[in-house]
Amino acid sequence: MVNFPSKLIEDAVAEISRLPGIGKKTALRLTLHLLKQNEPVTVSLAESLLSLRKNIRYCARCHNVSDGEICSICAGNKRDKSIICVVEDLPDLLAIENTNQYSGLYHVLGGVISPIQGIGPDELKIESLIQRIDQPDGEQPVSEIIMALPGTMEGDTTAFYLTRKLQDKGVKISTIARGIPVGGELEYTDEVTLGRSILTRIKYSTE
Amino acid sequence: MVNFPSKLIEDAVAEISRLPGIGKKTALRLTLHLLKQNEPVTVSLAESLLSLRKNIRYCARCHNVSDGEICSICAGNKRDKSIICVVEDLPDLLAIENTNQYSGLYHVLGGVISPIQGIGPDELKIESLIQRIDQPDGEQPVSEIIMALPGTMEGDTTAFYLTRKLQDKGVKISTIARGIPVGGELEYTDEVTLGRSILTRIKYSTE
Repeated sequence: MVNFPSKLIEDAVAEISRLPGIGKKTALRLTLHLLKQNEPVTVSLAESLLSLRKNIRYCARCHNVSDGEICSICAGNKRDKSIICVVEDLPDLLAIENTNQYSGLYHVLGGVISPIQGIGPDELKIESLIQRIDQPDGEQPVSEIIMALPGTMEGDTTAFYLTRKLQDKGVKISTIARGIPVGGELEYTDEVTLGRSILTRIKYSTE
Repeated sequence: MVNFPSKLIEDAVAEISRLPGIGKKTALRLTLHLLKQNEPVTVSLAESLLSLRKNIRYCARCHNVSDGEICSICAGNKRDKSIICVVEDLPDLLAIENTNQYSGLYHVLGGVISPIQGIGPDELKIESLIQRIDQPDGEQPVSEIIMALPGTMEGDTTAFYLTRKLQDKGVKISTIARGIPVGGELEYTDEVTLGRSILTRIKYSTE
């Protein structure tokens, strides 16, 4: 890479290229783009990032990001407060919201159990999930916990741990289905997924 | 796109996705990445952008970006100060520097003549180029001006205009070669480029 004629550009390129998926070339392109724009463009970008990082709060109930004490999902009065969907982290919550198929509440664990990375159950927001079952947010009791955890060993371990922890709470526990994707070809699906999709096959109702 | 659970995230995504080549999905991924990192990561990114935009200066001689009055290229004592390469803008200067084939000075015009976009010669740094020839930066006089302008109609117009302006200054005027790229196939080269590369063919020295 060239020696930059300005330390300021060099610094900006270095900072931008620390972002995932952005290399030096793209970082330089973005830097030169910002230089070409009026100053407020850069200022409002930088300020939105600072404000994001400094003012972001997490919902006291479900640990989703939030602008206030309680997030908009937990506070929403159109949500079914008897169902809680357990997710690893924020992108998963957003992905599920994006489907428009779910109207219950969430619980963001903040990770999954991973002995290799030194993440045990105590690092995750498990106690607060149990509390939410004991003292429900809404007027109805919590009737179901849906595990929407990754299909990895860590995800399965976490789901197993949670299931054991919650088994005598009198709530239904379920997990999202694993199987071949919609539009997916059988021959290109890995054997484990295909095997699971046979084991967990769904009966057509013939009545 | 999903309704974001936080206005702060929504703002950050909106700001980031205004950058060229970055869509909403990538912007969200970058935003969530920054949230996962420690606060100083975001702070130093934002501050480097602010500092870039607020403190950037332009070289009083060649209009390259600079940290001081004179840029590091104009101030460099290993540069050949008798040659000036005229470029449209900063990315072109960086691209030429990147080749390691040029050790003269630059002159950044800040654009090319484009009647459609309302850019006339007065919008470009042409007067200061003439001044640099009349009052050279170094001890030797300027002996050559290299036009490294885009191969577009606007680039050619600008080169033609400059050539006329500079013709009685007693400097050699040249332009970078246009032709087929190194490694390029003839059959895939457009006719205009191929035609030009025949007209401006270079003699093998047979002496």
